[in-house]
Amino acid sequence: MKEYGYLWELALILGSTKMFGLITKKLKMPQVVGALFAGLIFGPAVLGNILSNFNVGGFNLAEFTLRETDFIKMLAEIGVIVLMFNAGLGTDLNELKKCGKSAFLIALLGVLVPLSVGCGFTYWFFKEGWIHSLPGTSTFMQAVFIGVILTATSVSITVETLQEMGKLKTVSGNAILGAAIIDDILGIVALTVITSLGAKGSSGGTGELAFVLIKICMFFVFVMLFGLITSKLFTKWMDRDKKGMHRHVIGAFVICLIMSFLAEFVFGVADITGAFFAGVILSLTHREQFLASKFDVIGYLFLSPIFFASIGMQVDGKQLSHMGIAVVIYAIAITVIAVATKIVGCGLGAKICRYNNYRSLRIGVGMISRGEVALIVANKGIEAGLMPKELVAPIIVMVLFTTIITPIILKPVFLKTGPNAISDQMDSELASTYEKRVVEKKKNILSE
Amino acid sequence: MKEYGYLWELALILGSTKMFGLITKKLKMPQVVGALFAGLIFGPAVLGNILSNFNVGGFNLAEFTLRETDFIKMLAEIGVIVLMFNAGLGTDLNELKKCGKSAFLIALLGVLVPLSVGCGFTYWFFKEGWIHSLPGTSTFMQAVFIGVILTATSVSITVETLQEMGKLKTVSGNAILGAAIIDDILGIVALTVITSLGAKGSSGGTGELAFVLIKICMFFVFVMLFGLITSKLFTKWMDRDKKGMHRHVIGAFVICLIMSFLAEFVFGVADITGAFFAGVILSLTHREQFLASKFDVIGYLFLSPIFFASIGMQVDGKQLSHMGIAVVIYAIAITVIAVATKIVGCGLGAKICRYNNYRSLRIGVGMISRGEVALIVANKGIEAGLMPKELVAPIIVMVLFTTIITPIILKPVFLKTGPNAISDQMDSELASTYEKRVVEKKKNILSE
Repeated sequence: MKEYGYLWELALILGSTKMFGLITKKLKMPQVVGALFAGLIFGPAVLGNILSNFNVGGFNLAEFTLRETDFIKMLAEIGVIVLMFNAGLGTDLNELKKCGKSAFLIALLGVLVPLSVGCGFTYWFFKEGWIHSLPGTSTFMQAVFIGVILTATSVSITVETLQEMGKLKTVSGNAILGAAIIDDILGIVALTVITSLGAKGSSGGTGELAFVLIKICMFFVFVMLFGLITSKLFTKWMDRDKKGMHRHVIGAFVICLIMSFLAEFVFGVADITGAFFAGVILSLTHREQFLASKFDVIGYLFLSPIFFASIGMQVDGKQLSHMGIAVVIYAIAITVIAVATKIVGCGLGAKICRYNNYRSLRIGVGMISRGEVALIVANKGIEAGLMPKELVAPIIVMVLFTTIITPIILKPVFLKTGPNAISDQMDSELASTYEKRVVEKKKNILSE
Repeated sequence: MKEYGYLWELALILGSTKMFGLITKKLKMPQVVGALFAGLIFGPAVLGNILSNFNVGGFNLAEFTLRETDFIKMLAEIGVIVLMFNAGLGTDLNELKKCGKSAFLIALLGVLVPLSVGCGFTYWFFKEGWIHSLPGTSTFMQAVFIGVILTATSVSITVETLQEMGKLKTVSGNAILGAAIIDDILGIVALTVITSLGAKGSSGGTGELAFVLIKICMFFVFVMLFGLITSKLFTKWMDRDKKGMHRHVIGAFVICLIMSFLAEFVFGVADITGAFFAGVILSLTHREQFLASKFDVIGYLFLSPIFFASIGMQVDGKQLSHMGIAVVIYAIAITVIAVATKIVGCGLGAKICRYNNYRSLRIGVGMISRGEVALIVANKGIEAGLMPKELVAPIIVMVLFTTIITPIILKPVFLKTGPNAISDQMDSELASTYEKRVVEKKKNILSE
């Protein structure tokens, strides 16, 4: 295939993720599901494995399937950075202030329960030797990392389902939306801490630990100072012209890349954390919609499909068959844990905030689905040497299952008439802004 | 700098090309000039060379300058493919039919004269041993390749200048526009033939030569058949939805990538030739503006700056100082040849078509400037082993000089009142469509 094989690979990635995405869309599932399947089917997990036994005209047919080259890996990494930057651009700090204490408590328990149970179970699994943890980093850290992956809720599928059912503007719907915003922030903080600690190696004495924590604090101080200055200067610069201009979009990208770089280079923090906060900072310019619309184009047309497919590509059919039953058991267990801990964690949080049983269950179910962010975090873990590659398949299973199951469970839970069935409707500002945003997003990211 | 150094490099490329581009724009020069300078100044030619002598905190400062990594090289290559695809999308086959015989003759001589003189001079320069041709490919082929680089006219700067002067809708302006369209096609054909022949090695007996030529013919047959079917199917597909959709843009990109791949893999033709004709095929859908607007975004925001900077990066300060005087002489000579042969070639063509002396001179001067395409072809030559890397600097000098000088010479030549000064104005359909397109382009590619 020589050096221009990457042209074929790009064509195959873009074509297959879109085709599968359109199919999953018809089946009322997010297009991400289709993109993942494309990576699985055209990658080493299925076709790569099968076709490696065939040779035609001097070419091994597996050469025409998807493989994770360095080039694809780096493009996927930039894809993640752009995804996180866009997520940051979509964060509304004012909205965050409006979320009440109850949203905070629901999110906090919805993070802590999956984190601790996921970590505990994985640690036990490693210790029993059923799956080997990576050498070089402490087993405990790797278990914590899996816990962090389990924390990231992706409510867009919930919001769409509730919207269809006309149940978004309810007490439970409002609580889900509020908790999801906080969940994002808590998730990124957890990721920041774990990658920093993990990157510093497993030996970590208390002195080193303190040093890492100081660096993380310094990073957040830097974000605040840099954010204050940059958001003001950037707003001034953009306000010189009424129309958005190319220079502004490029300027925004430069800020995103520099913050990603500095996060890693100076503070030892994950680059995607830097990208996310670059987005948050630029969301303060009030031109974030214009900026996001441009980054959406390089996202959907080029970088995002590569990222989602690359996750699917990391599953290797041969490797899986060597691992066998242990991986299957782990996949089932971690999926059950992912579902149960969100229901229990968020539900418990809601219960403490005096939501009744029905609403607490609804809120818990609404937070089940994991999406892009879980994949992004998992990808980071593989790169940082914090997660064995065999666990990619279980994580994909978990993401797919939680995404597919959420709308299915949501319906009976929300349609069942409890004692508060009628009084449940409420005006929700959060729901209104969210509805708008989902419509926007549907127009843009990996849709259509 | 470790593995996240590329984040810094991307930030530096995007930031510096835009900044320099805005400066050159203020100086009434195309932004490509600025982007090239950015690559020169922040690359190995200037800063990389200087900073390599300094170390700070365990880092050699040259690590923070631009360097042509494999990643940058491949992104630049995709950038070129997108540029050529967009050029193809901008080609209007109907317009081509309207160009008369005179436009054809002007373009043909405007291609043949620079090609033969550039080739002859370079061959002599190689033979005298002042600059060494690459081993492995015939010296003559390499000389022909330089000739091909000299053929590519880029009239956008001429059109802008004539527009400002109100001289675009003149007999000479119309001839320039017509000839430029033909020039593009002749240039791409010349490139196709030379890269195919060159890639087959220098030994090339007549049997092999015939084989290569048959493959090229088959490529053009393939383009026509594939084009007929694809353009119809694609139009039908797009017409199902009134609005343009993501799937259409992705579909277009997939066609572009597959044609680029097949061009190399099956027909031994340059990938950018495939990309160009993919664009031409999709221009028949009559939605080419929608498609082009999306590819413009990944162009200006990501890929094009990387390509232009990467050309500048290929100039190495240390290498140049070793070569010394020979490269300088070659740069001056090839620049003079570039200017003179276009004036003589196109002017001669015009003269044969019975344009008077004034108009022939105007037409010749209008065709002087070389731009993106010359750089794209040069880049291809380095990749294909058809051009020694030392010649990048002279080619850049040639492109910069012809681009800067064209508007300067155009003014006196067009303002001087000849015997036909008044009757020169004419209604020109070509000029009208071109004016529109330049306005569009100014909105998009590397502008603002």
